[in-house]
Amino acid sequence: MAKDLTKREENYSQWYNDLVIKADLAENSAVRGCMVIKPYGYAIWEKIQATLDKMFKDTGHSNAYFPLFIPKSFFSKEASHVDGFAKECAVVTHYRLKHDPITNKIIVDPDAKLEEELIVRPTSETIIWSTYKNWIQSYRDLPILINQWANVVRWEMRTRLFLRTAEFLWQEGHTAHATYQEALEETEKMMNVYADFAENWLAVPVIKGVKSENERFAGAIETYAIEALMQDGKALQAGTSHFLGQNFAKAFDVKFTDKEGKLDYVWATSWGVSTRLMGALVMAHSDDNGLILPPKLAPIHVVIVPIYKSNDQLNLISEKALSIKKLLEKKGITVKYDDRDTYKPGWKFAEYELKGVPVRIAIGPRDIENNTVEIARRDTLQKEVHSIDNIDDYIENLLSDIQTNIYQKALNFRNDNTFSVETYEEFKQVLDSKGGFIKAHWDGTAETELKIKEETKATIRCIPLNELKEEGKCMVTGKPSKQRVIFARAY
Amino acid sequence: MAKDLTKREENYSQWYNDLVIKADLAENSAVRGCMVIKPYGYAIWEKIQATLDKMFKDTGHSNAYFPLFIPKSFFSKEASHVDGFAKECAVVTHYRLKHDPITNKIIVDPDAKLEEELIVRPTSETIIWSTYKNWIQSYRDLPILINQWANVVRWEMRTRLFLRTAEFLWQEGHTAHATYQEALEETEKMMNVYADFAENWLAVPVIKGVKSENERFAGAIETYAIEALMQDGKALQAGTSHFLGQNFAKAFDVKFTDKEGKLDYVWATSWGVSTRLMGALVMAHSDDNGLILPPKLAPIHVVIVPIYKSNDQLNLISEKALSIKKLLEKKGITVKYDDRDTYKPGWKFAEYELKGVPVRIAIGPRDIENNTVEIARRDTLQKEVHSIDNIDDYIENLLSDIQTNIYQKALNFRNDNTFSVETYEEFKQVLDSKGGFIKAHWDGTAETELKIKEETKATIRCIPLNELKEEGKCMVTGKPSKQRVIFARAY
Repeated sequence: MAKDLTKREENYSQWYNDLVIKADLAENSAVRGCMVIKPYGYAIWEKIQATLDKMFKDTGHSNAYFPLFIPKSFFSKEASHVDGFAKECAVVTHYRLKHDPITNKIIVDPDAKLEEELIVRPTSETIIWSTYKNWIQSYRDLPILINQWANVVRWEMRTRLFLRTAEFLWQEGHTAHATYQEALEETEKMMNVYADFAENWLAVPVIKGVKSENERFAGAIETYAIEALMQDGKALQAGTSHFLGQNFAKAFDVKFTDKEGKLDYVWATSWGVSTRLMGALVMAHSDDNGLILPPKLAPIHVVIVPIYKSNDQLNLISEKALSIKKLLEKKGITVKYDDRDTYKPGWKFAEYELKGVPVRIAIGPRDIENNTVEIARRDTLQKEVHSIDNIDDYIENLLSDIQTNIYQKALNFRNDNTFSVETYEEFKQVLDSKGGFIKAHWDGTAETELKIKEETKATIRCIPLNELKEEGKCMVTGKPSKQRVIFARAY
Repeated sequence: MAKDLTKREENYSQWYNDLVIKADLAENSAVRGCMVIKPYGYAIWEKIQATLDKMFKDTGHSNAYFPLFIPKSFFSKEASHVDGFAKECAVVTHYRLKHDPITNKIIVDPDAKLEEELIVRPTSETIIWSTYKNWIQSYRDLPILINQWANVVRWEMRTRLFLRTAEFLWQEGHTAHATYQEALEETEKMMNVYADFAENWLAVPVIKGVKSENERFAGAIETYAIEALMQDGKALQAGTSHFLGQNFAKAFDVKFTDKEGKLDYVWATSWGVSTRLMGALVMAHSDDNGLILPPKLAPIHVVIVPIYKSNDQLNLISEKALSIKKLLEKKGITVKYDDRDTYKPGWKFAEYELKGVPVRIAIGPRDIENNTVEIARRDTLQKEVHSIDNIDDYIENLLSDIQTNIYQKALNFRNDNTFSVETYEEFKQVLDSKGGFIKAHWDGTAETELKIKEETKATIRCIPLNELKEEGKCMVTGKPSKQRVIFARAY
């Protein structure tokens, strides 16, 4: 039935890998750690892109494009930034190949060595702030609110499709502001945009918070993040928004004259989400039969499958199917009518379940007689026979229901898998037996966090923003704590 | 007035550079040969992308994404392909930086040398065909109709913003077919899509044709191209579509079983346009006052500028301006109301002329009294006073007129600058005195073409497809020729 998909209970990790490949989302390429995003996977990414792009524009941002390459010297200007990224950089050292005069093989031309090596961008703060230096003189030039859709490269040693790849696609916003306050507001605003997108489009509930020092972006003063919980009880960071303070402005000497004529460094933010969201989408909702896609991001909303024996039957069914297709398309619903005779209905049912198409309509000869169709929803696998009258309104509401239901299911799962613990023993016991988000008191030090990480592989996912500020004592050191923080093992 | 733009007559090349920078389209970056595409320029590129993307999807194509990097060995598999690109490749040799233990500077870690060097894609045929090998077994897997939006790198020595940059943005279609005929039809279809886009969106008339052997894509059997003429009489290749035959299928051993069960190599095409189109757009239409943008690709269609002395006047004008804005936006027209008090109307007029906004509406106190506005069109610089009644219909028609007029002007220019010559002497004389497209007879040999290129810097832009097949004698060798071909000096 489910096309040899490993079951989640057997091996969650293998289930994920199988699913990404069998549902035609992506595959590993011949280049170590780099993936090929296949058309079906890319169609989902295009919907993610289009939705976020509109949200960015609605909040005043414009797109632009900056170079793929960063001169090594730029990269080194912000000390903690280079420390954060140096270990995983693809480095361009030459600009020409040639035929080896002896072997006649293609070799790198040693005479074409670059004077200064170029880093393939792992993120673009340095090249962008070196550019902003020329764009900013006065407060009149601020704010700059720019986003870039781009590919970036981080030479990760252990890679997984979508979750951690050497090359990935993302957007990176880079904004410049006249004041601390404005930059901080921008940082928070974009975290909220991400949370809105995660909950209302991806249908994934998220916790908003700030990162501990250990988990902060290299070069940031504060990193805001949204954290989601996957079905195996591991956390996934689904988006980050960084308050960079004046760090990059100082590294690249970007000053502006304020209204009073005083010179000051510019305040900065950066924020990004990546194709990693595709991994979150798969892991948050899908089941042992395949993908479950939220209707708002599904490339196909409805598939119609004819059930027939004779050509005469097929003709009658096709006529009906195409009229339903037309009706639904008028409502902006994407419909595929799969009348291929090379595959049986059962095969098609399994195929579209695997691909996560939210609604399947089957039409057989008896449906034609009764003016009905069989409607199956992917999220619950429930089937029902329904009259064709008002089918368009019915399907429209059903898609909306599915979107809500998927979110609610994920929210229930998270609520059921969020635990408060008082002691380190209890923490370890819950972590190993159940996983999930664990709320615990922590003394605020990097040492304690590192100790916990080393001993349990759990990290602080975030210091939540919207939770009760309940005081307590650190579960490890007993020192005072101002609020519980969220721990989890994470992707 | 025109913000220190060099005049075309003085120095066309400088005019172009000035305009690209002053109109905020793009600028050179700190990385040699790589550009920064600024928000205004990128907004035009986004319109180009959206339009083409829809055309590709309407012709049955899907988007996907393949790796940025190509293993050197892949690159070498198609002999003429590597010969074509080897001289301009960015090569990644290392994957880590580190602190030099002695100087403490950031250096490339010599221990992190890649076993096999990676080439930053200059084009993706090799990585894509190595992938297609796993996707194609039978005729049922064909055709594959995939497009990719991506950045590519060609290490050009002499670069110019948009026209020739080390990194550029483009789309590359890569299709796989069961038959010669189907692949050839696809190649021609995509050339026609490009021509449709060039003429009806960019408003640039193009000649469709095939390339001579010298100018063919490295690895292609036949290259189809659309050729445009710029205002300085030089040609610009605005898009190419390649019939690749079975070359890449053979290089990567991609075979399929046909309906009769016979094994054969797969047939291929590839086709692309790039940010170079931005250069064509600027050079084809603009004037000494700045950009002239075709309305279909202009980020802002209409700017409204208030002319006022008192705040009371401004209030009245703003009310009127915003109601006009609303009316126009209902028709899908993009309107900017520029009521900044930090700039004078004259400055704003010059600014929006520079930026190529197709229509400017000025509203002063007398207009309020008379229920009129002053409308200026950017293409002709004509001004007229017009009643506010039905302003939305009027502007909608005006934008359509401007689109047509810009195209017609470019077509007239091309007609006036296309010459037929009979002798090589005449050829050289026309080339040096007038430039333009020169139709001449050629004997069909690479030798003769190279001789002409060396002596005159003119190349065969294409062997046109839709022209009269008039026989004649090669202007250089006197050997027989079956039709005139198009020569020009080119970008």
